[in-house]
Amino acid sequence: MGLVDQRLNELGIVLPAPTAPPAGVEVRLEFVRVSRGYAYVSGHAAADGSARLMTGKVGGDLNADQGREAARLAALSMVASLKRTFGDLDRVHRWVKVLGFVNCASGFSSTPQVLNGFSDTIMEIWGDNGRHARSAVGVAELPFDVPVEVEAVVELTETPAVHGRA
Amino acid sequence: MGLVDQRLNELGIVLPAPTAPPAGVEVRLEFVRVSRGYAYVSGHAAADGSARLMTGKVGGDLNADQGREAARLAALSMVASLKRTFGDLDRVHRWVKVLGFVNCASGFSSTPQVLNGFSDTIMEIWGDNGRHARSAVGVAELPFDVPVEVEAVVELTETPAVHGRA
Amino acid sequence: MGLVDQRLNELGIVLPAPTAPPAGVEVRLEFVRVSRGYAYVSGHAAADGSARLMTGKVGGDLNADQGREAARLAALSMVASLKRTFGDLDRVHRWVKVLGFVNCASGFSSTPQVLNGFSDTIMEIWGDNGRHARSAVGVAELPFDVPVEVEAVVELTETPAVHGRA
Repeated sequence: MGLVDQRLNELGIVLPAPTAPPAGVEVRLEFVRVSRGYAYVSGHAAADGSARLMTGKVGGDLNADQGREAARLAALSMVASLKRTFGDLDRVHRWVKVLGFVNCASGFSSTPQVLNGFSDTIMEIWGDNGRHARSAVGVAELPFDVPVEVEAVVELTETPAVHGRA
Repeated sequence: MGLVDQRLNELGIVLPAPTAPPAGVEVRLEFVRVSRGYAYVSGHAAADGSARLMTGKVGGDLNADQGREAARLAALSMVASLKRTFGDLDRVHRWVKVLGFVNCASGFSSTPQVLNGFSDTIMEIWGDNGRHARSAVGVAELPFDVPVEVEAVVELTETPAVHGRA
Repeated sequence: MGLVDQRLNELGIVLPAPTAPPAGVEVRLEFVRVSRGYAYVSGHAAADGSARLMTGKVGGDLNADQGREAARLAALSMVASLKRTFGDLDRVHRWVKVLGFVNCASGFSSTPQVLNGFSDTIMEIWGDNGRHARSAVGVAELPFDVPVEVEAVVELTETPAVHGRA
């Protein structure tokens, strides 16, 4: 078992099923796209397979703490997608950049506090390698009315593929 | 003629004129910026040169199918910018990451279905190399009131420039 | 003194204090994250240390010129973060990609004109190396109600660190 999986065990984290679109919806994307030593990860929300775990606007339907929980669950869904892609989560060496979108009710601007739920989770698991640049913005609408959606760029461990032969 | 241009012919696709800002508007950006084997592509909308082909909010002024068409036309405008930059579209080897913004009327959250119009078009042209990670979010306003704007990161074929001499 | 710092002097630009969250707010992010020859820069606003210099919605509380000024100040805050990270700003060789978010009042769609305040500033300082791809979108809410937030990807000068030992 890899170090990251061991750490998940220590933390008592059980990953959800890798995300899939809700029944009847086609999404024409790769949840994880690998390119020359990096993985570019599509927007993830709080999901367990095809089920969205939370919906609604933060600052309206949901309070800031619930938004933070949605961001934490989005992190776990993203980790599940990375595990599906790589098998061994140790392939994800360092986190680089995160862009978080919060489905905001009018006047709710505490988006960084919401996104901390994502970032804290990643740093609990990866430690300093989980640190990342981040933006956290409030948007008008998110797919399937999820409260938080997060995309990321992560650095992979160096293998021959890193040196240009994606 | 390169393989991608041949494919455009087979599909009967005629590219629009490369995008330019509307008359009287200065935009201080590069539509395509090359860096070490990647092209970073600015936000593109449905446009033919300086003319925007569609405007308005999806879920209000425009329905979801019209939004999807706007996303398809944004893809063609982006391909036209790539062709202007590289001449030979075969230089664009693989698509990596797409970020799509939908100008949403309140309550319209089917942004992935709208963005499928972009992604399907790119995959029709590039096949599996056109696959990409993607986020699709609904925003309050887009430049010039366009319904859909899409930016992208693409991997270029390896040339000496890939190895750090951008 | 490096060339970029000399240029700042010529332009009479005095950088603000590097950005920090407002008192009492934790943000779990790196303002600058270096990865294999690139720096990924978190969303920056008009700020001087922990003070936000402007707040409100562009097209409502603030007019377009004030939005443009907010974007210019966001650029200076970002340059201050890069200086804190690298000491020598000549390490930032070329600008690659900028994503700008404007906190828009309903109906304000001149987001590119606002973001020109950022892009012009970077090009004044870095010249052609400051050119970049860019998207400029209007969002519902931004952290701490700032009018403009901008994130970026920049290319670093080649040092051994570029070749994979971030």
